[in-house]
Amino acid sequence: MPEKIPRTVSKRLVSYYMCLEKLLDEGVEVISSEELARRLDLKASQIRKDLSYFGEFGRRGVGYKVEFLYNRIGEIIGVQKEWKIVLVGAGNIGRAIANYAAMRERGFKILAAFDNDPQKLGTEIAPGILVRDVRELEDFVRENNVEIGIVAVPAEAAQEVAERLEKGGIVGILNFAPVKLKTTVPVENVDITASLRVLTFEIVRRRG
Amino acid sequence: MPEKIPRTVSKRLVSYYMCLEKLLDEGVEVISSEELARRLDLKASQIRKDLSYFGEFGRRGVGYKVEFLYNRIGEIIGVQKEWKIVLVGAGNIGRAIANYAAMRERGFKILAAFDNDPQKLGTEIAPGILVRDVRELEDFVRENNVEIGIVAVPAEAAQEVAERLEKGGIVGILNFAPVKLKTTVPVENVDITASLRVLTFEIVRRRG
Repeated sequence: MPEKIPRTVSKRLVSYYMCLEKLLDEGVEVISSEELARRLDLKASQIRKDLSYFGEFGRRGVGYKVEFLYNRIGEIIGVQKEWKIVLVGAGNIGRAIANYAAMRERGFKILAAFDNDPQKLGTEIAPGILVRDVRELEDFVRENNVEIGIVAVPAEAAQEVAERLEKGGIVGILNFAPVKLKTTVPVENVDITASLRVLTFEIVRRRG
Repeated sequence: MPEKIPRTVSKRLVSYYMCLEKLLDEGVEVISSEELARRLDLKASQIRKDLSYFGEFGRRGVGYKVEFLYNRIGEIIGVQKEWKIVLVGAGNIGRAIANYAAMRERGFKILAAFDNDPQKLGTEIAPGILVRDVRELEDFVRENNVEIGIVAVPAEAAQEVAERLEKGGIVGILNFAPVKLKTTVPVENVDITASLRVLTFEIVRRRG
């Protein structure tokens, strides 16, 4: 794999992968960079350039073989395995995540949830996902070789949770708390308010 | 306002705004582009360039006045008003969104939720937010001048909901369904699986 793929390319590769997944479902076998570009709201030249990082996938005038490209990008972005996950925070957001079936179908397996609310301990936040005491977090992560931690706790508790996840040996964090985490492992943020701000800014811009 | 601000700049402006909000809370009055860059994991030159789209904010060697910059960016991105919102889909994700207090505090007001499950109609999905029949969606949007629709329904229902929102007169959509919506209004997507894919790709890259 090339050493330095820009972060923006990573995000687009993921979007290519998800679009190809849908094309496979639709039974499409071959697709041109132009058609792919149309579906993704990108320039065809952009797609050809991104894919050229990883060698030659398509031939001019013929297009890309959907299944081949799908499998190859899948290998590159690391989908060919099951990822072990713990969820920290058993509130509304935690519950929504734990019950999100599409995650499991796509290889993201939540092994357990953690909270500090005594009333929630021992209950199931989703079928098969038990709520454990957050004090067991580090040990559980270590003993089960958990790779990813999902942080769905209030902002003021998020940094401490992130540090405990790291101590346990986590290699990546998906963060729903509206706060910037300081970690050595990669963090991906999901911030609903930020998304709303980007949207409303776009609305304001269009109004001119 | 400048005509064409690149989308990537929009997203960064929002992150500047949210960082400045935190600085204000911390009582910081002046900040250099270098310090802002450190906090946001960006280059100082990038920040200076982005802000130059909107005129001169800071002075070399003095730094930016936090409150002034915060208010000015707020005007630019359209935060100085309350946005009226409807939520479509009263499942787990809908419930998490409806109960997310930070949204209301930041000027995003959910007027009502909509669903097609008879058992949910008339109940409160969050304090003060009633679940209504999705058949009333267009009329409600029109009568209440709702500006934003949040789509939290299953993928197969999302496009139809988006079309009904547009017919009612919505000007922007925040979409949680894992599907690309075809609309004339701007759409911002929140896709948890996509965020996980970006994260795991980053993990794979770092492992080399």
